[in-house]
Amino acid sequence: MKIIDKMNASTQEGRTFFSFEYFPPRTEGGVENLFDRMDRMAAFGPLFCDITWGAGGSTAELTLEIATRMQNMVCVETMMHLTCTNMPVEKLNNALKEVKKAGIQNILALRGDPPEGQDTFTAIDGGFACALDLIKHIRKEYGDYFGIGIAGYPEAHPDSIVDDEEKMKENYWRDIHYLKQKVDAGGDFIISQLFYDTGLFLQFVEDCRSVDITVPIIPGIMPIMTYGGFKRMTSFCKTKVPQKITDTLESIKDNDEAIKKYGIKLGTEMCRLLLDSGVPGLHMYTLNLQQSAVSILEDMELVDRNNLPRHLPWRPPTNVQRSGEAVRPIFWSNRPKSYIKRTADWDAFPSGRWGDSQSPAYGTLNDYQFMRRHTSSEKRAQKAREAWGDVLTCIDDVKEVFLSYCKGEINILPWNEMDTMQKESAEIVPKLKELNKKGYLTITSQPRVNGTPSTDSTFGWGRPGGYVYQKAYIEFFVSPEGFSKLQPQLSSAPSISYMAVNSKGDLHSTLEDGDVNAVTWGVFPGKEIMQPTVVDPRSFIVWKDEAFDLWVTEWGALYEDGSQGRKVLESIRDEWYLVSVVDNDFVHGDIFKVFGF
Amino acid sequence: MKIIDKMNASTQEGRTFFSFEYFPPRTEGGVENLFDRMDRMAAFGPLFCDITWGAGGSTAELTLEIATRMQNMVCVETMMHLTCTNMPVEKLNNALKEVKKAGIQNILALRGDPPEGQDTFTAIDGGFACALDLIKHIRKEYGDYFGIGIAGYPEAHPDSIVDDEEKMKENYWRDIHYLKQKVDAGGDFIISQLFYDTGLFLQFVEDCRSVDITVPIIPGIMPIMTYGGFKRMTSFCKTKVPQKITDTLESIKDNDEAIKKYGIKLGTEMCRLLLDSGVPGLHMYTLNLQQSAVSILEDMELVDRNNLPRHLPWRPPTNVQRSGEAVRPIFWSNRPKSYIKRTADWDAFPSGRWGDSQSPAYGTLNDYQFMRRHTSSEKRAQKAREAWGDVLTCIDDVKEVFLSYCKGEINILPWNEMDTMQKESAEIVPKLKELNKKGYLTITSQPRVNGTPSTDSTFGWGRPGGYVYQKAYIEFFVSPEGFSKLQPQLSSAPSISYMAVNSKGDLHSTLEDGDVNAVTWGVFPGKEIMQPTVVDPRSFIVWKDEAFDLWVTEWGALYEDGSQGRKVLESIRDEWYLVSVVDNDFVHGDIFKVFGF
Repeated sequence: MKIIDKMNASTQEGRTFFSFEYFPPRTEGGVENLFDRMDRMAAFGPLFCDITWGAGGSTAELTLEIATRMQNMVCVETMMHLTCTNMPVEKLNNALKEVKKAGIQNILALRGDPPEGQDTFTAIDGGFACALDLIKHIRKEYGDYFGIGIAGYPEAHPDSIVDDEEKMKENYWRDIHYLKQKVDAGGDFIISQLFYDTGLFLQFVEDCRSVDITVPIIPGIMPIMTYGGFKRMTSFCKTKVPQKITDTLESIKDNDEAIKKYGIKLGTEMCRLLLDSGVPGLHMYTLNLQQSAVSILEDMELVDRNNLPRHLPWRPPTNVQRSGEAVRPIFWSNRPKSYIKRTADWDAFPSGRWGDSQSPAYGTLNDYQFMRRHTSSEKRAQKAREAWGDVLTCIDDVKEVFLSYCKGEINILPWNEMDTMQKESAEIVPKLKELNKKGYLTITSQPRVNGTPSTDSTFGWGRPGGYVYQKAYIEFFVSPEGFSKLQPQLSSAPSISYMAVNSKGDLHSTLEDGDVNAVTWGVFPGKEIMQPTVVDPRSFIVWKDEAFDLWVTEWGALYEDGSQGRKVLESIRDEWYLVSVVDNDFVHGDIFKVFGF
Repeated sequence: MKIIDKMNASTQEGRTFFSFEYFPPRTEGGVENLFDRMDRMAAFGPLFCDITWGAGGSTAELTLEIATRMQNMVCVETMMHLTCTNMPVEKLNNALKEVKKAGIQNILALRGDPPEGQDTFTAIDGGFACALDLIKHIRKEYGDYFGIGIAGYPEAHPDSIVDDEEKMKENYWRDIHYLKQKVDAGGDFIISQLFYDTGLFLQFVEDCRSVDITVPIIPGIMPIMTYGGFKRMTSFCKTKVPQKITDTLESIKDNDEAIKKYGIKLGTEMCRLLLDSGVPGLHMYTLNLQQSAVSILEDMELVDRNNLPRHLPWRPPTNVQRSGEAVRPIFWSNRPKSYIKRTADWDAFPSGRWGDSQSPAYGTLNDYQFMRRHTSSEKRAQKAREAWGDVLTCIDDVKEVFLSYCKGEINILPWNEMDTMQKESAEIVPKLKELNKKGYLTITSQPRVNGTPSTDSTFGWGRPGGYVYQKAYIEFFVSPEGFSKLQPQLSSAPSISYMAVNSKGDLHSTLEDGDVNAVTWGVFPGKEIMQPTVVDPRSFIVWKDEAFDLWVTEWGALYEDGSQGRKVLESIRDEWYLVSVVDNDFVHGDIFKVFGF
């Protein structure tokens, strides 16, 4: 979706938005860490996130790759920076083509800094000399497809900053008129350069309005995190720093903690002033760090880590091609990235009714480039080994791992990409522990919910004024003997639907092939009933291959071929059942009854 | 749907089915009365209804028309009889084409009686000589499209009945082997000729099974209603009547009431014996009358007039072309036939999500041939005049009519095709009376329902084990002044959605163009959430033309052009608002609050 449309909707609804900016890390490990952080920060509900284009296009490939993963795996509305530096038109066209293919709809169009080693920007052969040309080019080639953000300089562009006061004023206004041209050429909104003098920003907005720049102007906020970093950045950007701030920083410059704390306090004061003056949102230059940016937003009461916004029970994709997606099988609820990857090639995403699970693409999972496995690097494998055990000798050891997971002693399991148990399972944890002790190794679950307000901090999702519902659900592995004992209970319980299958495909099910059981739904004012999570036999059959494989491809990867540990896991994969149980009575039911307690 | 599929499903679920047979009445008034009766009898949930083909094809046109209306307006699964009498192949083909076009999928294939004035059946030029040829022809031309019922004669075909016992036995078995040929040629199930000796029927079934006739054999039951009729019928069909029945009838033959009562008692006894012997269902020869057939079914506890089966809140169409229909706007809930007519040309019926309301066919209602208006005949107009008043002088007179309707003193209103208030509005009648007194002239309403079992006798629908829900709904006409006073209340009530429009199209709405508000939904084991009734602005705009027009085309038709009555009604049509109000809080809301009580 275009960011400008989201901005307008947000403003219309009286909400203040915020966004996070990141840059491409230098190391592979840094990239992986960044994605972990983005995942957590995306949960706060930024309107969008953006990723910079390294100076001189040095990170072009990486920026493209990160942007693609942000949009498609982190599922946050993504804006990719694009600059003219060292970019002939063909290269720009190629980048735009890739971005569009990745389902990204937003570009921040910049001229860019001079390439490394040069002082002034000069256009390369076949390249553009300024952001204005880039904007015109994007609009010419892609019409309205892209939302285009542009940069605004409250203190004029660094290149325009001179000592002569008269000349400075002239340059400032020349920049503003140039900004007007960028807007007229197709810029949808303006993100400001960082600043520390709020008055200058507000004056800049007023001056922009005076030349009929009417698009949103979003202040860019860079919280002070270190003394050195602050010094370098303000010098590079030629940013004016009010004397009071300089004095305070000087007085605590050797105390890193105090600097950081002051940065949050100052950021909060600036943001409060800005919002009071009517800015519609805040753009946070995060420097790839979470704490300062999020603390400021928390102080502003724009985010609440105990009550994260949920539009749906799962994070909806932002990729423009799957914007209609409104339904998912519960099986992948702890492996959303795997699900997105599986369904990436679907022509149509079910927008209200379940469908397309028979798409040939659904069954195969060949290109895992965006997926991180728990054992994909030595460092991650080490973490997994700590959680799952260096040595594994018997089924009881496996049980012990599941039990530790329920207890919160470990936080990773092969069937969970998210390295944390879903908050909404918390209230049934004592019973899940019992189940795992009895040898039902649980991997997905949810308690029943009978009409809780949509604003509930644990179960709520969607907009206020609605009611949400869940049918109780438990999915687990169990030995063939365990299943034989359980099956009569499952079959005779009137409100239970279940499916059980082993890796050979022997299926026992109370659902028929085309059945779709809605297990999470919500009723909202003026809307159709939303039913975002379902249980259906067709998806289950696809999921079971993935679920059984993980025993060996993930967990088994820790142990050598032929080792006892590998043999234990292989025997589970080859012989056990995967069982999916729904209690259809969401009003009075108790799903644990069938397990004998 | 094919009747055989419904039979099999019913048997599999352990349910006993029943069906009603009708014949084409001789007068137009008779036809209209028959449809009223069918409408009421369809509510009991017959597996199908069938309509006979007049002797010698004399009623061909009428039978076709009645069958079409049964399937499409009464919405009952319809089987049309088709005979060879006086029907050259082209004529048969034409009838089959028409039947298919009407969305009917079931034919009872018969040879038919000899044409009027002839004693024995002879094939006409280019026609068929027997039912077997007709069955083969249908299968050849239409493959599996049609379900084909065939006739079976427990006492042999009347033509085969002779005095000679040996010869009679031969004829009986020849008929049975011929029946086997009809089954082999494509007959799906057998409906028996009427009989009064249950033993003969059961022997017939046994004999059929002995020659490998495995399809269902349904006994045809004709309750004795009059002495004369019974005599004529048994003589025409050469039916054996047990002496005990003859004796009883002779003893009460002058007492019409006693005969009828005995007919019900006898029918019940016969049916009990048949069901105990394992027949899967009962076919009732109704002779176009309701009482005897329904009383027998009530005595058998197969129907309960206080708890009519509802698959959906509205009667689902049986037309094979709209079998996927699962959603309807609430506006036509009292005018289902008008809705079906409007949407008859839709290519696709929304099967889960709302759609197609922008179909061009939706907006127009040009072909009203199947609709009966309250004022369409002098007799009906007289009834309407009695209800709505001979003379109408002011708005208060109009209010009085609505109030009488709420009180149940009259049972027809232009906005209600069904000549009865919906049962589920009953609990809010006292408040509806208040509303009408205050000048809110209500035409559609439902109370809120928060998770009532799907078996509830008032609000329940769908299969057992589910829970059903409703958002409270009220739709009414109100004067411009009344609306001005009400609007602030509507706008400020947090859980209220409303739309208001006058005939000129001035619209006030809290819903946006594409919004669809589900107001009736159900949650069932192993299924998606069903949401059969919705409120949406697009349909509302289409509905308002019909709703305003009815003031003048229906009610106004009672009064002369230029009369005071006509003027009053025209002023309402031209100036008043039609208002649709939903209370989205189905858990705690009180929709009547906005009206000041």
